[in-house]
Amino acid sequence: MTDPVALTAALIRCPSVTPLEGGALQLLQDRLGAAGFTCVRVDRGGVPNLFARWGAKGHARTFGFNGHTDVVPVGDASAWSVDPFGAEQKDGFLWGRGATDMKSGVAAFAAAAIDYVSETPPDGAIILAITGDEEGDAQDGTVALLDWMKAQGEQMSACLVGEPTCPERMGEMMKIGRRGSMTAFFTVKGVQGHSAYPDRALNPLPAMARLMARLAAHTLDEGTEHFDASTLAITTIDTGNPATNVIPAECRATVNIRFNDAHSSASLIAWLQEEAARVAESSGAKITMTTKVSGESFLTPPGAFSELVSAAVRTETNVTPVLSTSGGTSDARFVKDHCPVVEFGLVGKTMHQVDERVEIAHIEALKRIYSRILSDYFA
Amino acid sequence: MTDPVALTAALIRCPSVTPLEGGALQLLQDRLGAAGFTCVRVDRGGVPNLFARWGAKGHARTFGFNGHTDVVPVGDASAWSVDPFGAEQKDGFLWGRGATDMKSGVAAFAAAAIDYVSETPPDGAIILAITGDEEGDAQDGTVALLDWMKAQGEQMSACLVGEPTCPERMGEMMKIGRRGSMTAFFTVKGVQGHSAYPDRALNPLPAMARLMARLAAHTLDEGTEHFDASTLAITTIDTGNPATNVIPAECRATVNIRFNDAHSSASLIAWLQEEAARVAESSGAKITMTTKVSGESFLTPPGAFSELVSAAVRTETNVTPVLSTSGGTSDARFVKDHCPVVEFGLVGKTMHQVDERVEIAHIEALKRIYSRILSDYFA
Ligand SMILES: [Zn+2]
Ligand SMILES: [Zn+2]
Repeated sequence: MTDPVALTAALIRCPSVTPLEGGALQLLQDRLGAAGFTCVRVDRGGVPNLFARWGAKGHARTFGFNGHTDVVPVGDASAWSVDPFGAEQKDGFLWGRGATDMKSGVAAFAAAAIDYVSETPPDGAIILAITGDEEGDAQDGTVALLDWMKAQGEQMSACLVGEPTCPERMGEMMKIGRRGSMTAFFTVKGVQGHSAYPDRALNPLPAMARLMARLAAHTLDEGTEHFDASTLAITTIDTGNPATNVIPAECRATVNIRFNDAHSSASLIAWLQEEAARVAESSGAKITMTTKVSGESFLTPPGAFSELVSAAVRTETNVTPVLSTSGGTSDARFVKDHCPVVEFGLVGKTMHQVDERVEIAHIEALKRIYSRILSDYFA
Repeated sequence: MTDPVALTAALIRCPSVTPLEGGALQLLQDRLGAAGFTCVRVDRGGVPNLFARWGAKGHARTFGFNGHTDVVPVGDASAWSVDPFGAEQKDGFLWGRGATDMKSGVAAFAAAAIDYVSETPPDGAIILAITGDEEGDAQDGTVALLDWMKAQGEQMSACLVGEPTCPERMGEMMKIGRRGSMTAFFTVKGVQGHSAYPDRALNPLPAMARLMARLAAHTLDEGTEHFDASTLAITTIDTGNPATNVIPAECRATVNIRFNDAHSSASLIAWLQEEAARVAESSGAKITMTTKVSGESFLTPPGAFSELVSAAVRTETNVTPVLSTSGGTSDARFVKDHCPVVEFGLVGKTMHQVDERVEIAHIEALKRIYSRILSDYFA
């Protein structure tokens, strides 16, 4: 029996702050390799990634796990009450950076997979796709693994992402999709002038204020069957003009949109362009916009796969998880182009914070849940 | 006969960049003292000011001139085609910093006053109130002179400010008032949060955008009998949040208002407070406002005094000046609390610019106009 708590502790002791490997993937490769997994390091652009498969390549029943070993920086080290890479156990918790996000998740699914294939070798295959860059810009992380798998003919039938998904109580939430995320950067240009003679200038600020007020007042939707309402947040408006007697020539603003399946980044960009054009025309100001799309929204519709995961959670925790699509982005946004994907993991309350820690009992419960998912999947 | 061109040139050679005296007031004191004027330096807070009177103190017919010898900085010295303090004469112009704003005006009224009292000593008095801080914050300039005069029992019956008033052509415009000017500084405070969860934050930016859009869209008035419409200019909106996944806690904006006699700073502050309160209430954001009033609007209603000035201009230039209240602020905003005040001077086109210069013929014409105003006033 593989102890998921000891494995989590060993992973926490690897200082794998993005993009450093820190020994974490090597540790997993050693354990998985010893258990009969074929392991390949799929590094790209300086990012370390680990692919591991038990069973036959291309098997029609191939269950996948996805996760990451990289962690966010320690932050204010002096504010921690423990060594962030010490993996100390006290008060029933295991402490350290990555304890919840998500070395415990990786340890739990690796331990579950290792024990499962040695105790009950299934007629099928298990793939673990583990990246060292989920917290960074993620361009060469899970994406690189999926690109490589496609080129190699490696295919998962279904995939579970082990990110923390429960807000407060173990088992209360799993994710069957995520909202998309995009950012728009606006520049409004006018003509500089003197405050006493606005008619001789073209002030970009009323146009910017109107555009931002219009965008903020717009209701994108009221939510859809499986999604919360889409949201729009103006994150900054800046001019940088210190002179009260000068009308500035230019103003910039940034808007971040989290959107559900009622929209796509393309439909939102079209809407933003229309709004900008309307204000540009009525004001005479010149408005330009650039955009950055972090991910489209996606949904794995409730069905056999989500029911299987939900049942395993219920059996092990006596809690029925809500099927949610809330939260930020995760690597599930990449996996969904490969196969059906759901996310389930433990309570994420302290993730990215000082004194990040995980309840030890939760790590053990999580391994039991992942084990049950495997046995039910291959049953 | 006092040559106003030579006097202007001598003043330009004094490098009296605010708040430096640069020898300019001393030069005037020497000339006026020699002509029988009682001269007193009324310095306050490091600002040099000169009071000069010919005739009996407290005479019921006391004509006043107001002006300033300080000048704005040279700016990019290498961009000048002449020495900014060289007072070079070429192409019919006298070149240098202060040539139009307003050493030529001071020289013209000083020359007119000196010659008038020596040639035709009037039954009355003439006061010259000349400051060395009009271009700075002006707290210890003309205000200090007027405070001192009040304390001393010195009283002008009417006052002409010699600032440049003509946009293009000599004689085309005089000013019988000015719009007021005030600036409001807004801070909108909310609660910081994550862009993915706007409901858990309170974004100050939509409130700021709405408030600014409302203010900019409001028509303060359509102009009054003697004034152009009041104007409002948003001069800056700033947040300084570089993180697109963070909703900021605070945003600041500045609004400058130039207002006519349909408003006072008090009525405008009340309106701004009402608008801010309305947006604060509907948004839940906290909005604070501070204000700085540079001057109230004022008007010397058209009458005997403005008609006297207008007639003198018409006689000397064959141009009838428009009675205007346009433009920024001037020290007339202080003088108006002391006595009726109008402003007339030459073409201000190059003021505050590189290669500031004045047409030599205009200086001579200006002295003739000021001389005629004196003789008509005391006639
Ligand atoms: Zn994570
Ligand atoms: Zn001036």
